Amino acid sequence: MGLLPTPVERLAEALARFPGIGSKTAQRLAFHAVRMPAAQGLELSQAVAAVAQEVGPCPRCFFLSLRDQLCAICRQPGREQGVICVVEDPGDVLAIERSGEYRGLYHVLGGALSPLEGVGPAEIHAEELRRRVGEEEVGEVILATDSDLEGEATAGYLHQLLQGTGVRVTRLAHGLPVGGELSYADERTVARAFSGRQQL
Amino acid sequence: MGLLPTPVERLAEALARFPGIGSKTAQRLAFHAVRMPAAQGLELSQAVAAVAQEVGPCPRCFFLSLRDQLCAICRQPGREQGVICVVEDPGDVLAIERSGEYRGLYHVLGGALSPLEGVGPAEIHAEELRRRVGEEEVGEVILATDSDLEGEATAGYLHQLLQGTGVRVTRLAHGLPVGGELSYADERTVARAFSGRQQL
Repeated sequence: MGLLPTPVERLAEALARFPGIGSKTAQRLAFHAVRMPAAQGLELSQAVAAVAQEVGPCPRCFFLSLRDQLCAICRQPGREQGVICVVEDPGDVLAIERSGEYRGLYHVLGGALSPLEGVGPAEIHAEELRRRVGEEEVGEVILATDSDLEGEATAGYLHQLLQGTGVRVTRLAHGLPVGGELSYADERTVARAFSGRQQL
Repeated sequence: MGLLPTPVERLAEALARFPGIGSKTAQRLAFHAVRMPAAQGLELSQAVAAVAQEVGPCPRCFFLSLRDQLCAICRQPGREQGVICVVEDPGDVLAIERSGEYRGLYHVLGGALSPLEGVGPAEIHAEELRRRVGEEEVGEVILATDSDLEGEATAGYLHQLLQGTGVRVTRLAHGLPVGGELSYADERTVARAFSGRQQL
């Protein structure tokens, strides 16, 4: 309706393109940007520009990195070079690193197979994974995709793709969350906890 | 932990300062920014900079405006000049304009009184409202602050502040939402609908 100044309209439209941000939220954020001190606004503007210009996927594992450089994990000395953990998103890498349980390398798919959304093997860097297994001395590939429909299908696809390479392919364990109450777990989690039960 | 490229960390921190955006969401948005086409990233960066540099409050009513200019509503020909509707946020102006029911001017407080959060009369442009009532030929001030605790307190304060100016002070009607079902209304709304009932 043209009541808002053009820069505010434009910012709200740009923000509404982010996943999970509706037009109402985008507008609220744009209003907040108006009330930020000018220095803070410029800082945010420069941060966005820096990300757009300087950051890209790691050429080896597709985690976030400064453009054309290996990422912080690939460059970290002392990482186990013979294990690759395959995840969907960069956020999964951070979650695994927080657990402190893993010291190997990663392969970040950038999503999961989803024929309906046009995400095929080429979009999830599947071929690059197979090439890594052939070229690097990889002993184990841990599939850590989500346990939803797409994540399971992706794990199944990658498992097949890697057959014949001789690499050991494993999948993260599923079951009851540690510290959670059984009565609050959903039925599929309980079912997985039963089918994957282990002898003590 | 330094696993993410610095520009991504910095963007996530800047986004986490927005109200209603937690650190997880901020990180997710920053990851998305990495995957945006470069042109779209620069567009967003420029939109943020333009808002920070070019947009400010309307010098008369504090709605959003290009810096030091009267806002689109104050400049609109044919608006009733003798009525001021007092709202908390710019979003309230848009909601009222969408209703098509109002043709007067606005006064945007930018919040509501909240002693606990350090928001006093000076922060909500209360004095500027009284000055407008004195200087412009205002016949009616409609208090349209929210009907929560802070909004009601703000309406009460402004009502007192305007006593003696001779202006007619009104408050938006509260009651059942149009098209809503009685059984779904909360008890305070039902109570207000009773106490404000009108003869047919």
